[in-house]
Amino acid sequence: MYGEHVSRLIEALSRLPGIGSKSAQRLAFHIIRLPKDRAENLANVIQEAVANVRYCSLCCNLTDNDPCNICQSAKRDAQLIMVVEDPRDMAAYERTHEYHGLYHILHGALSPMNGVGPNDLKIAELLRRMQDNPVKEVITATNPTVEGEATAMYISKLLRPLGIKVTRIAHGVPVGGDLEYVDEVTLTRALEGRVEI
Amino acid sequence: MYGEHVSRLIEALSRLPGIGSKSAQRLAFHIIRLPKDRAENLANVIQEAVANVRYCSLCCNLTDNDPCNICQSAKRDAQLIMVVEDPRDMAAYERTHEYHGLYHILHGALSPMNGVGPNDLKIAELLRRMQDNPVKEVITATNPTVEGEATAMYISKLLRPLGIKVTRIAHGVPVGGDLEYVDEVTLTRALEGRVEI
Repeated sequence: MYGEHVSRLIEALSRLPGIGSKSAQRLAFHIIRLPKDRAENLANVIQEAVANVRYCSLCCNLTDNDPCNICQSAKRDAQLIMVVEDPRDMAAYERTHEYHGLYHILHGALSPMNGVGPNDLKIAELLRRMQDNPVKEVITATNPTVEGEATAMYISKLLRPLGIKVTRIAHGVPVGGDLEYVDEVTLTRALEGRVEI
Repeated sequence: MYGEHVSRLIEALSRLPGIGSKSAQRLAFHIIRLPKDRAENLANVIQEAVANVRYCSLCCNLTDNDPCNICQSAKRDAQLIMVVEDPRDMAAYERTHEYHGLYHILHGALSPMNGVGPNDLKIAELLRRMQDNPVKEVITATNPTVEGEATAMYISKLLRPLGIKVTRIAHGVPVGGDLEYVDEVTLTRALEGRVEI
């Protein structure tokens, strides 16, 4: 119906996460009608990112420089490591401006159902890092999901025998939320984790 | 926070329609983690599409070959032209398998509010086409929106003095909707119920 080039573009776009066939069509026609230089730019940034972005050899973040800017920074507390699932989780904590330690990006969470085991995550890299540079504390900030909790437990069991303090971010009601809409499990956790004021 | 290459990719993706900054981040990390050949393929299909896709000199569809496959087809009734706003609208009618004439793609609709006038659409191309190859009927299948109706009226007023019968698809299509999302049966009903304007 459309030409072969358009069909190939639609097909490639529709394989991206969250892009259905309708969105892929809309994106494809948008891209084809872009000024040539902007469409070229889109193709180029994809190629450059794929060619130049690598994992930081310390924290496994995606980065242009190795070690990444955060691992290189003299302002960060190198004795404190926050373990997150994804670079976007790291970005979320960076936006708080309240955390000044380093990170470790697992690139996923343990999920036996989906065939994701410890070897599919950057856990060996975390262990090696602990052996090279012992730290005071490892904060597990994996997602508050079944997979994230299991991953935090797994890391805790690996690191505690090495004498490293492993903590987990608190569970509770989100600030600004409405108790009425918070699920029962979260409410229970918030109750269990109550602190004196 | 992310490296420069990642930031540039996120920025380029977030300029696409319907892609917000969160989606752009998700897409960027997905693309970077793709196997090299698949990411290269995505960049290549964009470049190839932009380099090779052109407007069909007859119907103004986006195509690899000029004239496009539909305009070249001996099976289509060249005496019947359906005017649509967008290639996706043409694709929607093709999926009905009930229309066997040719198309003319305007690439938009008249919208004085948004500064879209007759010269921004492929209306001159339609007129030239009518002069070169007079047809029995022009079916206006622009969207059932204010802009689409105005565009249909405008085309009717241009073509009727040339002795060409101009029809409008019936309002079986839901008013305020978008042709792309209408089911095939409704599109067929709208085609059958067309009236002269």
